[in-house]
Amino acid sequence: MSKILTVGEIMMRLQPEGYKRLVQADKFDVCFGGAEANVAVSLASLGLDASFLSKLPDNLIGDSAIKSLRSFGVDTSNIPRGGERLGIYFCEKGAAQRGSVVVYDRRYSSFSDIDVKEIDLEKTFTDVYWLHFTGITPALSEKTEKFITTLLKQAKEMGIKVSCDLNYRKKLWSREKAGKVMTSLMQYVDVLISNEEDCKDVFGIEAKGSSIEKGELSKQGYSEIASEIIKKFGVKAVAFSLRESISASINGWSGILCTEEGSFPSKKYNINIVDRIGGGDSFAAGIIYGLIKDFSYQKTIEFAVAASALKQTIEGDFNLVSLKEIEDLALGTGSGRVSR
Amino acid sequence: MSKILTVGEIMMRLQPEGYKRLVQADKFDVCFGGAEANVAVSLASLGLDASFLSKLPDNLIGDSAIKSLRSFGVDTSNIPRGGERLGIYFCEKGAAQRGSVVVYDRRYSSFSDIDVKEIDLEKTFTDVYWLHFTGITPALSEKTEKFITTLLKQAKEMGIKVSCDLNYRKKLWSREKAGKVMTSLMQYVDVLISNEEDCKDVFGIEAKGSSIEKGELSKQGYSEIASEIIKKFGVKAVAFSLRESISASINGWSGILCTEEGSFPSKKYNINIVDRIGGGDSFAAGIIYGLIKDFSYQKTIEFAVAASALKQTIEGDFNLVSLKEIEDLALGTGSGRVSR
Amino acid sequence: MSKILTVGEIMMRLQPEGYKRLVQADKFDVCFGGAEANVAVSLASLGLDASFLSKLPDNLIGDSAIKSLRSFGVDTSNIPRGGERLGIYFCEKGAAQRGSVVVYDRRYSSFSDIDVKEIDLEKTFTDVYWLHFTGITPALSEKTEKFITTLLKQAKEMGIKVSCDLNYRKKLWSREKAGKVMTSLMQYVDVLISNEEDCKDVFGIEAKGSSIEKGELSKQGYSEIASEIIKKFGVKAVAFSLRESISASINGWSGILCTEEGSFPSKKYNINIVDRIGGGDSFAAGIIYGLIKDFSYQKTIEFAVAASALKQTIEGDFNLVSLKEIEDLALGTGSGRVSR
Amino acid sequence: MSKILTVGEIMMRLQPEGYKRLVQADKFDVCFGGAEANVAVSLASLGLDASFLSKLPDNLIGDSAIKSLRSFGVDTSNIPRGGERLGIYFCEKGAAQRGSVVVYDRRYSSFSDIDVKEIDLEKTFTDVYWLHFTGITPALSEKTEKFITTLLKQAKEMGIKVSCDLNYRKKLWSREKAGKVMTSLMQYVDVLISNEEDCKDVFGIEAKGSSIEKGELSKQGYSEIASEIIKKFGVKAVAFSLRESISASINGWSGILCTEEGSFPSKKYNINIVDRIGGGDSFAAGIIYGLIKDFSYQKTIEFAVAASALKQTIEGDFNLVSLKEIEDLALGTGSGRVSR
Amino acid sequence: MSKILTVGEIMMRLQPEGYKRLVQADKFDVCFGGAEANVAVSLASLGLDASFLSKLPDNLIGDSAIKSLRSFGVDTSNIPRGGERLGIYFCEKGAAQRGSVVVYDRRYSSFSDIDVKEIDLEKTFTDVYWLHFTGITPALSEKTEKFITTLLKQAKEMGIKVSCDLNYRKKLWSREKAGKVMTSLMQYVDVLISNEEDCKDVFGIEAKGSSIEKGELSKQGYSEIASEIIKKFGVKAVAFSLRESISASINGWSGILCTEEGSFPSKKYNINIVDRIGGGDSFAAGIIYGLIKDFSYQKTIEFAVAASALKQTIEGDFNLVSLKEIEDLALGTGSGRVSR
Amino acid sequence: MSKILTVGEIMMRLQPEGYKRLVQADKFDVCFGGAEANVAVSLASLGLDASFLSKLPDNLIGDSAIKSLRSFGVDTSNIPRGGERLGIYFCEKGAAQRGSVVVYDRRYSSFSDIDVKEIDLEKTFTDVYWLHFTGITPALSEKTEKFITTLLKQAKEMGIKVSCDLNYRKKLWSREKAGKVMTSLMQYVDVLISNEEDCKDVFGIEAKGSSIEKGELSKQGYSEIASEIIKKFGVKAVAFSLRESISASINGWSGILCTEEGSFPSKKYNINIVDRIGGGDSFAAGIIYGLIKDFSYQKTIEFAVAASALKQTIEGDFNLVSLKEIEDLALGTGSGRVSR
Repeated sequence: MSKILTVGEIMMRLQPEGYKRLVQADKFDVCFGGAEANVAVSLASLGLDASFLSKLPDNLIGDSAIKSLRSFGVDTSNIPRGGERLGIYFCEKGAAQRGSVVVYDRRYSSFSDIDVKEIDLEKTFTDVYWLHFTGITPALSEKTEKFITTLLKQAKEMGIKVSCDLNYRKKLWSREKAGKVMTSLMQYVDVLISNEEDCKDVFGIEAKGSSIEKGELSKQGYSEIASEIIKKFGVKAVAFSLRESISASINGWSGILCTEEGSFPSKKYNINIVDRIGGGDSFAAGIIYGLIKDFSYQKTIEFAVAASALKQTIEGDFNLVSLKEIEDLALGTGSGRVSR
Repeated sequence: MSKILTVGEIMMRLQPEGYKRLVQADKFDVCFGGAEANVAVSLASLGLDASFLSKLPDNLIGDSAIKSLRSFGVDTSNIPRGGERLGIYFCEKGAAQRGSVVVYDRRYSSFSDIDVKEIDLEKTFTDVYWLHFTGITPALSEKTEKFITTLLKQAKEMGIKVSCDLNYRKKLWSREKAGKVMTSLMQYVDVLISNEEDCKDVFGIEAKGSSIEKGELSKQGYSEIASEIIKKFGVKAVAFSLRESISASINGWSGILCTEEGSFPSKKYNINIVDRIGGGDSFAAGIIYGLIKDFSYQKTIEFAVAASALKQTIEGDFNLVSLKEIEDLALGTGSGRVSR
Repeated sequence: MSKILTVGEIMMRLQPEGYKRLVQADKFDVCFGGAEANVAVSLASLGLDASFLSKLPDNLIGDSAIKSLRSFGVDTSNIPRGGERLGIYFCEKGAAQRGSVVVYDRRYSSFSDIDVKEIDLEKTFTDVYWLHFTGITPALSEKTEKFITTLLKQAKEMGIKVSCDLNYRKKLWSREKAGKVMTSLMQYVDVLISNEEDCKDVFGIEAKGSSIEKGELSKQGYSEIASEIIKKFGVKAVAFSLRESISASINGWSGILCTEEGSFPSKKYNINIVDRIGGGDSFAAGIIYGLIKDFSYQKTIEFAVAASALKQTIEGDFNLVSLKEIEDLALGTGSGRVSR
Repeated sequence: MSKILTVGEIMMRLQPEGYKRLVQADKFDVCFGGAEANVAVSLASLGLDASFLSKLPDNLIGDSAIKSLRSFGVDTSNIPRGGERLGIYFCEKGAAQRGSVVVYDRRYSSFSDIDVKEIDLEKTFTDVYWLHFTGITPALSEKTEKFITTLLKQAKEMGIKVSCDLNYRKKLWSREKAGKVMTSLMQYVDVLISNEEDCKDVFGIEAKGSSIEKGELSKQGYSEIASEIIKKFGVKAVAFSLRESISASINGWSGILCTEEGSFPSKKYNINIVDRIGGGDSFAAGIIYGLIKDFSYQKTIEFAVAASALKQTIEGDFNLVSLKEIEDLALGTGSGRVSR
Repeated sequence: MSKILTVGEIMMRLQPEGYKRLVQADKFDVCFGGAEANVAVSLASLGLDASFLSKLPDNLIGDSAIKSLRSFGVDTSNIPRGGERLGIYFCEKGAAQRGSVVVYDRRYSSFSDIDVKEIDLEKTFTDVYWLHFTGITPALSEKTEKFITTLLKQAKEMGIKVSCDLNYRKKLWSREKAGKVMTSLMQYVDVLISNEEDCKDVFGIEAKGSSIEKGELSKQGYSEIASEIIKKFGVKAVAFSLRESISASINGWSGILCTEEGSFPSKKYNINIVDRIGGGDSFAAGIIYGLIKDFSYQKTIEFAVAASALKQTIEGDFNLVSLKEIEDLALGTGSGRVSR
Repeated sequence: MSKILTVGEIMMRLQPEGYKRLVQADKFDVCFGGAEANVAVSLASLGLDASFLSKLPDNLIGDSAIKSLRSFGVDTSNIPRGGERLGIYFCEKGAAQRGSVVVYDRRYSSFSDIDVKEIDLEKTFTDVYWLHFTGITPALSEKTEKFITTLLKQAKEMGIKVSCDLNYRKKLWSREKAGKVMTSLMQYVDVLISNEEDCKDVFGIEAKGSSIEKGELSKQGYSEIASEIIKKFGVKAVAFSLRESISASINGWSGILCTEEGSFPSKKYNINIVDRIGGGDSFAAGIIYGLIKDFSYQKTIEFAVAASALKQTIEGDFNLVSLKEIEDLALGTGSGRVSR
């Protein structure tokens, strides 16, 4: 009983070199990522036994995605191969006043066409004690909504802990649809991870006195939101990542973990952004890691925020940092001296 | 009356650097190409007024395709924007015994969803005296089959010359379907361009005494095929490109142009391949150019073969050579000395 | 009557990768740029009909410059080909206390040798309603001074609006020569664009209470300078871009537009610089766009400053941003969030 | 009983881009490789359960080697971490008359310092039915000689099949030393893989009528050598890879498999070399695969030669080809046509 | 009497592109560096006659190091060739909260095995009037400790000035060993260069009221340390570089020069870090240059701090700035404007 | 008396990556080269004391050229700095039927403006025993013609040996002018190096029975030409490099050395071309080296041809091979095996 199963889509990510815009590119940096895959890589890098469940096309592009996951130690042995294509997303890195741009080309992906019959449910759930998914999975298609629902039911029956990152994507579904579906799935969820925007967009729950656009975030407000969610859905813990977007180059980054025992805000980092994509996923992984390892709530949120601050200094979706590096930052000063 | 209209799909082409395989790539070279777009770029580079008709998504990826075509002087002003996505193809460069590999991800493209109502037919056909398409266009979808049929009828009515490159793609349609559709479209075609494989696959017409796999090609055989096609479909000219694949690194390359006046075989080049993709398209462009410029049939085939031999020394789909470079090769020795 | 004509030199720009110095380079990033060409690309990107007039060598290097302009939709059909060479400039990107370095190798360029007889004046001016030039053009050679004077006279006769960016280059001419020539050309100018340094260097007019070296800039001072210029030369509007150079990595950026109706200062951006070259040109294009589109003066200066702030986050001379991106920044917060 | 264990050293390989010499490099392509690791990757790519046993330093460089092996599906869970460093080899790609150059910096590697106590012998041998090593391992140090001897004894006791690639490296040990040690290890070996040079260098056994330097190789001669080896050492099969080095750019490549049932020469390929390093290792893997899969001897040698011909068209040490690609080449014409 | 001799190790430096981590690298940027080599390059770039003494392997890697030094005008004619290998260090560039990481692979280097008999002492010391070394050299091995001691004695006898940068490396030796050896070498030293950490680590002398981890540094404290060192060891001058590590991306940088005439603190720069490695070495070179050129102490420290601030905006170990650039910064505002 | 002085122009060479055409480039590979500089680098690489005399602009581009020469051990201490610019040449690498293209942008270079007063003639000629120049130098300008004439007179007076490579460049001067000037300079020349084209173009002397365009070369013919030249100009030796251009990818390469003692033809190499530019210069350097080292005439020509065959497998103008590598090829088989 030692495996964490993350379920979702992995995409190919294509990005011009440096700060070039898409129309300037005659080369793309290629990597792979996706909300749930990113969590799997984070957890595997921290030494846990992480398995990723998805569906990938049976061609060289699917092979490349497998290779990428496998290289970071993620188990890919339960992934069925087939379907039409791997989803792609194009990404421009922003700077200063120019925000990053993501162009999705993810429709008709193999995963969006998955059916529970394509997997060996028993083998997939063997030794699993934690399941993680995000709001993107049910948003992709009716088939993935049905697929994740089946898995969540199975998890509930087996007593597996479930975490969910809301991850609202307005290009995938409307607020109304998201609210309806996610509300129905919350019965299976033990730990909810979110940011303010998503809670507002999906559940219509909003923090008082904060303005996302302005980048002002009130910690008290988040406690209130969390209380409401805990009350309404019966989840055990709600974790928010809090981003203050000063510019595309510089962000404030902190978080807060709310449980029935109270609210635990973290310290805040000012980050010179290298790559902010995957920041939320590495935060989710940090929360999951802390809860699994029975860290105190305060240590858990500090760990998750430190982990995800480091992520944003690393190219690509994946958070390639060691346990020691996260702990050093969570405990230390973050002065960024050379380690020789 | 001076414009050439080419109609079809343009895709983004993604290729690992050098001879790397797809699973080795952490960078892709990015360019754009597609059978009909390649012909448009060839003709524009030769100084003709070439216009490309397609449909492109209304996002930064569609903008990039426009930018690429426009940079080589192709008119893109008639292209409607909309639909879901730009088709993509991944490409590995082969060497020696390892052939190049193309992985298509072209379904659901904006062009495959085109409707003739989306274009301004009158404006599109203004000043057009030649229309070029390939067998890929009707193969993409029922909508594109209907679209190209409408255009061909319009062209016929307006007395516009029509050339067609058979370009059979087995992943897009069956031989039976291709045979049926292409046969019905041949009534609009004045000039047919092909290679032996395609004639066999689409029309079931095969040269005697040649084996494509072995790379042995009989010039007499092609004359017979051409006669059959001219008789059956009433086309004025049939041009074959003839590839002898010694290995992925070295190819023999020649062609033959067949008309009612007889068959005109070209000289043959031994090519150290840089990039063979687009070779057939640059051959088609050479044939079209020669016929438009009223070259003799012999000069036309020599020009087309020289143009397309040069293409295969150039990276990317597009044939970026000048009129002078082609003529020098067609007339000269191809000894590849430095031009200072 | 819908075309904007920009007249000047385009150069090849060669720059080591990243922050490498020239002596460290074994690769150069290649692009093209020049004050007036940059304005043409900006305006074409905003959807206007922009034409660039210059002279380019008749070789592959000239072809490359044409290709670059054409790719961004700039009309190049009036550019005569001939002369000796394309001007080149080498550029090192600075950081922190190390300023960027530009090494010019622009003498003997084809454009510096242009004669009005080489162009078809009537065709060039067809449909033109705005002409833009900068102080670099008359500074290049006696021939270009004569050339631009002829064009400006023609524009005046035809009632074409004229904008001029002072753009003083001390390596091209002395302050005295610049002052004399630019003063004589001001009779043709409707809109003058400048920064404080240039006004001081060319016309000897200086803002009180500001120190460029220190990066302190007084907005009142600029109003006084503008009044003096409006009075002296009869121009309708004077726009200043105001740079506060905190370091090569971080700049303050704002502007002020002065007309007889008053002075309109913009908000200020703190920019993490990606590439500051072309900042002034994109500002000029923003002013021209706003005036053409009959924006209010306040909206015009906010638009120009937002456009040029974004430029400085983009690699290369050209400002590759859309109308929507500029408007979003001008109206919004510039918090640089991801656009998904 | 389904695992193949390969034992040896993996190194970091550093190579200038393209055909640059080492003194010209300001970038290195980085990959990992080593005779036995290459065999493990080949077998894993073919779908077998391959495990690699070595020792790697406990730092980010060791992590990178692990990541590389794991990405291709090789089991690395038995590799102890510790010791001083990862061996490195620098490599220049040759062309035409300029041969490739390898500069080794492999001394003091973690693996050269391995002790059998550092591994869990029982776990390592669980399910193993084949063990592969090469002459490089005992050549590295007395410790590795002792280590491999222990493993071979264990394998013999457990009835595990053993294959050995002679792989003589003159910079690691003298012919005398190699002869003595390898002779003593031959008692454990079932399948010997070699080329003519190595047999001569290590055992002093030489084919008549062939000259390696001239690249002329007599197939009869190899049968004689093989007979002698089979008689002397009691091995079941001897496989030779036969390289005719026409130049660094073009090689002839074939092989011969000799058993008590006779000698089975393969067809010969003329290869335009992309990267010849690892050619011998992919040949060894092909032989092992054929024998494990109970291919006929003729099919085995054709498979091994086709696999290793393909390797030499692939960048890096590893042979990243699929079973289907090898079989297509072994059965087909190797004409290198595009696979769409 | 015009030559400066620097004695020490030069290593190959391998670094992933941009902000990539080592496990993400499939390319390394290659350069060469080492504390004493960096000083030699700085001084040669400033126009002095600098000679570097080391020992390099007699292979293409040693050749590459020679080529690098020679390209910047450093005399390499006294370097014996031989030994096992060139030391290597791998380097990850940090950002924000993620500090840079250096992985050393420098043991068994040719230099660590040097013997004074391998060099021509008389030729090496001809025309030398200044010798520079750092604490790394005696830390490498007993042989290098003996070697540098011999050289220092020789220098003392010849009246050559000696400067020493403490440069404590905890992976090379313990604090105790370092303290003992460096104390015994201080009798030969005229000018000591250090930072607070090193003084504390090596001599146990610590500034009051400053915390390195926090990045708070008290200038008074340094005067006290310097006084103690001057008193204890009889050196003429002690120079400290003072780094305030706000994050890996942003550092404060200043220095202080202490002599019997008093303490001379410099202005402080806030640096957006491009590459901080070699910052201390360029500071040492600045101090040496100022003292040689008989700058005032105040000018000397301002020069050294400006030089080393610029270094940190330059990729690689070497400080490739001109005398004029340093002087402009030392005297000017450091506003980083473009130099055209 | 041990120094070789080469006199001429060095240019910056800019080339798109791989086989890209100039219009496709958004990166250039940067190196430096020029006929006489290439000879200097070859000779320095072979261990001789080579000095290069030219004139370079006093900017960062001139510094980069110096750095490049110095890195390969060429003495640059006599080069005056000043003038307008460094010459540039753009270069496209050809393949198969597409020949390489060179676009020169070399006019107005600093060297073309050199005056003998700018150099210290005495210092420059100290220790010189051999002077090498090519026909490019007098072709550049009247000033360089005058400059080289002065140097040649001085050399003659001092008894210095003089070699000249004809190197006719039709873009620099007419055949008539070249013939007149080179004829007048032949009185100073001891060793003439050429290819057939140049002898024909400059002196109107042509080999019978050979056709350059066809790549057929008659060795007898060259002996006749050489005899004529020896008779007419009194030179001691004439060396021809003989290129058979099968395609841009594959060339035959050989040479012949003619003296009063007879004609010495070399063996011929079939070269898979990596970079043919500088082939002739490395041949010249080989001839000079052989004559200086008193090799037999046969050994001299074999050495020169082997050296220049190797050059054509190396990127850039410079021939970066060692004495041993040349000798191994001259004596050996050129089978291109790996050197481990």
